[in-house]
Amino acid sequence: MVEAIESDPVFSRENQYFQTQNERYEAAVRKAVHLQKKMHEMGWTENGPEYKYIYRALSGDVAFLLHRVFMRSISVLGSDKQIAKWIPLATQHKIIGSYAQTELGHGTYLQGLETTAVFDTATQEFILNTPKISAMKWWPGDMGRSATHTVVFAQLYIHGKCYGIHPFIVQIRSLQDHSLCPGITAGDIGPKMNFEHIDNGYLLLKNVRIPRENMLSKFCEVRPDGTYVRQGSQQINYFTMTTVRISLISDEVLTPLMKACTIAIRYSVVRRQSKLKPGEQEAKILDYQTQQEKLLPQLAAAYAFYFINDYLQELFNRGYTEIQRKNFDMLPELHALSSGFKAMITQHCTAGVEICLRACGGHGYSLLSGLPSLYTKILASCIYEGENTILLLQTARFLIKCFMAASAGQPVPPSVTYLAAVKHGKCPAKNKLDFLSPDIYTEAYEHVAVRLTSNTAAKLQDLIQSGVKKHDAWNQCTVQLVQAAKAHCHYIAVKNFAETVEKLETKAGIQKIMKHLCDLFALHGIFSNTGAFLHDGYTSAAQMDMVTASYLDLLAVIRKDAVPLVDAFDFTDKSLNSALGSYDGQVYQRLYEWAQRSPTNQSTESPVMFHCVFIGTLAHVMDSGVPDREALLRDVLHEMDPERHFLMVITWPKEAPSQYDSSPPIRDSKEHSNIRSGPAEATQDTQASKTCDNNWSLSMYFASVILTSVFPMRKHL
Amino acid sequence: MVEAIESDPVFSRENQYFQTQNERYEAAVRKAVHLQKKMHEMGWTENGPEYKYIYRALSGDVAFLLHRVFMRSISVLGSDKQIAKWIPLATQHKIIGSYAQTELGHGTYLQGLETTAVFDTATQEFILNTPKISAMKWWPGDMGRSATHTVVFAQLYIHGKCYGIHPFIVQIRSLQDHSLCPGITAGDIGPKMNFEHIDNGYLLLKNVRIPRENMLSKFCEVRPDGTYVRQGSQQINYFTMTTVRISLISDEVLTPLMKACTIAIRYSVVRRQSKLKPGEQEAKILDYQTQQEKLLPQLAAAYAFYFINDYLQELFNRGYTEIQRKNFDMLPELHALSSGFKAMITQHCTAGVEICLRACGGHGYSLLSGLPSLYTKILASCIYEGENTILLLQTARFLIKCFMAASAGQPVPPSVTYLAAVKHGKCPAKNKLDFLSPDIYTEAYEHVAVRLTSNTAAKLQDLIQSGVKKHDAWNQCTVQLVQAAKAHCHYIAVKNFAETVEKLETKAGIQKIMKHLCDLFALHGIFSNTGAFLHDGYTSAAQMDMVTASYLDLLAVIRKDAVPLVDAFDFTDKSLNSALGSYDGQVYQRLYEWAQRSPTNQSTESPVMFHCVFIGTLAHVMDSGVPDREALLRDVLHEMDPERHFLMVITWPKEAPSQYDSSPPIRDSKEHSNIRSGPAEATQDTQASKTCDNNWSLSMYFASVILTSVFPMRKHL
Repeated sequence: MVEAIESDPVFSRENQYFQTQNERYEAAVRKAVHLQKKMHEMGWTENGPEYKYIYRALSGDVAFLLHRVFMRSISVLGSDKQIAKWIPLATQHKIIGSYAQTELGHGTYLQGLETTAVFDTATQEFILNTPKISAMKWWPGDMGRSATHTVVFAQLYIHGKCYGIHPFIVQIRSLQDHSLCPGITAGDIGPKMNFEHIDNGYLLLKNVRIPRENMLSKFCEVRPDGTYVRQGSQQINYFTMTTVRISLISDEVLTPLMKACTIAIRYSVVRRQSKLKPGEQEAKILDYQTQQEKLLPQLAAAYAFYFINDYLQELFNRGYTEIQRKNFDMLPELHALSSGFKAMITQHCTAGVEICLRACGGHGYSLLSGLPSLYTKILASCIYEGENTILLLQTARFLIKCFMAASAGQPVPPSVTYLAAVKHGKCPAKNKLDFLSPDIYTEAYEHVAVRLTSNTAAKLQDLIQSGVKKHDAWNQCTVQLVQAAKAHCHYIAVKNFAETVEKLETKAGIQKIMKHLCDLFALHGIFSNTGAFLHDGYTSAAQMDMVTASYLDLLAVIRKDAVPLVDAFDFTDKSLNSALGSYDGQVYQRLYEWAQRSPTNQSTESPVMFHCVFIGTLAHVMDSGVPDREALLRDVLHEMDPERHFLMVITWPKEAPSQYDSSPPIRDSKEHSNIRSGPAEATQDTQASKTCDNNWSLSMYFASVILTSVFPMRKHL
Repeated sequence: MVEAIESDPVFSRENQYFQTQNERYEAAVRKAVHLQKKMHEMGWTENGPEYKYIYRALSGDVAFLLHRVFMRSISVLGSDKQIAKWIPLATQHKIIGSYAQTELGHGTYLQGLETTAVFDTATQEFILNTPKISAMKWWPGDMGRSATHTVVFAQLYIHGKCYGIHPFIVQIRSLQDHSLCPGITAGDIGPKMNFEHIDNGYLLLKNVRIPRENMLSKFCEVRPDGTYVRQGSQQINYFTMTTVRISLISDEVLTPLMKACTIAIRYSVVRRQSKLKPGEQEAKILDYQTQQEKLLPQLAAAYAFYFINDYLQELFNRGYTEIQRKNFDMLPELHALSSGFKAMITQHCTAGVEICLRACGGHGYSLLSGLPSLYTKILASCIYEGENTILLLQTARFLIKCFMAASAGQPVPPSVTYLAAVKHGKCPAKNKLDFLSPDIYTEAYEHVAVRLTSNTAAKLQDLIQSGVKKHDAWNQCTVQLVQAAKAHCHYIAVKNFAETVEKLETKAGIQKIMKHLCDLFALHGIFSNTGAFLHDGYTSAAQMDMVTASYLDLLAVIRKDAVPLVDAFDFTDKSLNSALGSYDGQVYQRLYEWAQRSPTNQSTESPVMFHCVFIGTLAHVMDSGVPDREALLRDVLHEMDPERHFLMVITWPKEAPSQYDSSPPIRDSKEHSNIRSGPAEATQDTQASKTCDNNWSLSMYFASVILTSVFPMRKHL
């Protein structure tokens, strides 16, 4: 399936880095239309596992993604009658939907939206208006140029009384000629850091009339006489947001971090810089402690968040089952965890991608590395679907509430029962090896989370008791409340990682390496935030030195397995779309070849087709191909170096092709002998790696085993 | 002068966000040519203060900047004869120069460069070659399409012996038809995160012969018979790098942070979100503690780094005077400080710009905010002119050396004498107000810097004594060495800020506010890095709680003056080029108006010329104009709110122009009364600010006084 997608020229992302916003948009529309055709041909369904994998293969670079949100919102918020009317039209693409919530003046604070929908009993219509410029819808995807319909969120007014925000289906463009409907002004909001392929749009409504039936009315209805009827629970709205926040973690946040790690770690065993030992050849940059300290914690975080995603998914499924039984008890916990983790993971992963980009030096800054677009894309995830600070404060509100309840002896949800048991002990670690014990570090994280929550709760109470008004007191504690929420999420992430590793027990060898990653994730968190652990003396300065020692030791240990650990993420070269991160390690050749495609080079004299020199002679180096990726990993790679695909780097062709010149590029004369490099050196390096790496045979099969054991979903595709 | 630049249509950056790489490049070339003409007309000189200000006004968006580096390298590294030959040609723009140092395979580690220059005694020529693909020159600015000549850095070989890296002048393009010279392959390296206006290029040399006279020979010469002669000190090369690192701080790093602060802080008093107090209108987002905690430390850092820049400049001038007297004693200290601060400031400012971007939510992510391009530009500064980690390790090497010397009772340079006096006391602060004493916090920073340096020195010695080889031991300490170097720079930045504030004594009122910023800069550093201060018990947990309390108190204090503090940076609207950050606060109108210019909207039906509605009626709101900025600040603004230019925000025209419709956009019917906003509310808000702000009359003149006292350079222009 991946091959069917990746080999199709319409789906090619080859020239993406050279395209204008218009070209990106047009290509995305072409891909979306072609994908529909292809899915129909192949019998793939939108809700099946295929769609997720196609999305991954295309890196989300298709149009009409908001059409899915449009459909989902009708399915969730619409009555049966509305679903029966609109969903078939949308499924058959007779209409293109969008989702118009955010306004110029309001984002996360939905209650503040200013668009109005006034019910006119005389005509049985809603009259929609944009009463001022800040009320203009702004940012909705697919709305600038594509959508024919959209779900508009507006303040409902009946007989002069406001009933708050409700969703309305509004047609915005003609189904005949795509012209804007009367009363509609719409267009593209212009360039952004990324998402050029999406026509984020604006929408201005001027006395737009829609029939009464167009208000989505599963939960609320306006009767013909203007009577407002609320049906069922409003709480379900939280659940919809929860769904979106959880699903975006894997698709939009984890994938970019995994890709960035793959690119930066592969590049770091190709790139050589300066000398570690005098007289030796230049060292691979991943052999420097500082480079390890940049990249390996990001790798560990990618695994940690992969496992937390499973945890949230499972919690979500349980919650969903309960909701179907009309039991909404799990909603507050689910809301708190999905909000907190959305904020924590997007923040952490965005910082991680930036670190990967910078760790690749100048070449990371080139769009051709693939890293800039990963960064500009993931950065948006910190902002959309709820601004992170606001989300963390919602988690904090839940924590404070639960802490107060727990202190009063009342029952609290499972994820926060630990708040009830405030221990005042000390960390029992006696030497640096003790800090490789999950019990030791998990308890330290727990202690910090409890301390920050209880201290902030105390400050809040003190302020209120001293006469500060409740809302002012809350505002004066928000910086610390955010810290408490982060500590809570970090604690759960560490605990969940440790428990997951525990369960991997039966899988030979993998558990050991996963435990290294878990240890690194935990110790990196302590090392980067020592104050929180030292503050009340739970951890002593001597213990903190042990943490540092264990943490730095781990870097050297994980460095050996770094390449298979990113190979296991199983990205194809086409999906990575990176000159630095390809499977074969041909970094410099690709940078040179890809630069030739730049339109800037088309307008000057055509450069020598130099890349043929390299690409031609290196044709034997396999591209990672993919369909038989597992077999390839198992059958081919065990005869090679763990960094095998990088061996051929900087090999210069023995015979110069005619395009270039008759003299071979490598001079054999004595004067140049000290600057020659090539296969001979690479082989020496292989030997060196083999000698010093005791886990050798384990590493061989490593990536393929992780692929099937840690990421089981993938093997079905 | 600024007016002459900004009013000139050729210098307009109006459409910048919509341009392709090619269009940006072509516009930059046009600007460069036009600027030369203009400078000639106006009698401005390249070395006068005007150039710096023009560069600021144009935001560096001109071509041929490397031409200046080309000239500087000839001036510094060339013999008198070479200077006499080449500088006039370059000054008259008869040739266009570039600077070809970095290669595909090597950046910061210059010794590793692989390009070769072999001296041929028979023809008295150097033969230049790119022996393998990693040796290709890659990244040099102006080289992809523009330059006719370049300074190539290559390994010099004479009679088979390598003499290391030397600079050579090489012609790469014909002066007749701009075609590439024989043996030259060159082109553009393709798209990058920013710098689309610069044709960063690649260069491949194939048996390119240049005369013996083209090796820049102030310090080293090759005689006709192949004798190699070294003249003078090689150390001067450090000095050149020092110059560049210091000069880039103000031009390329500080300016983007100042701009980002201006945009984000102005936007944060326009944007309203949610309610701080129940029943009141939505609050300005800058009134939230979390928003203050994001932005105000960046503002304080901008001032801190502005003052450190002065400090480095002064140190540099003293060093330069000494060097002219053939005294090179100051070079190691200058090198250590310029390296460390380049790394620290670029890192800090890049993070700061990103924080500002994210603090503006979705609109910050739009290119029209101006923030994305500031971020993508400043990010490069972490990478170019020396990779930051490597630079910090050079500072650390200096620190360790000085620490050892100081411990042995030997004299050390002034900036590190503090390392000699390791004190083992405790922080004497008794309450939170004590932490507003510069002595208290400066000593705490000093203590941490000494501890980190001495601990790492001890670890290094322990490792070596336990049998670890010196280079391995160094590598195993690098993560901690980086921490020590950062702590050293942070200490000096805090100390210098405090000393600068002390000297401002005579200037009424300003000192007080500058001291708030200094305190905030210092306490933010402690609050964000508590572990370093808690570690050995120098600061107790109780004292850390005092730091937190004082830090949070300061946020609320500085918030009042935040707007004048960014106004004092004195950026014109055109220079900011931001829809969010303009002086008049018309955020939403500008976003809408600017989006209309997007080519994506040209291809659909022409949108209603809606912006006329706003722009027309708001014509009375002055643009910040600039030439009389100071007078304007003094004469006009004292009758208004400190956030006066934001008052007119979200004002909807009372009468709707004919383009739109005959009915006024603000409905006066009762049903809408609760969602109306406008001047009336804004006035209330002004009153509220006046009542609660005791520093009122001070704030009025505040920006203008800072403008003339803190930034004295500006008033001459």
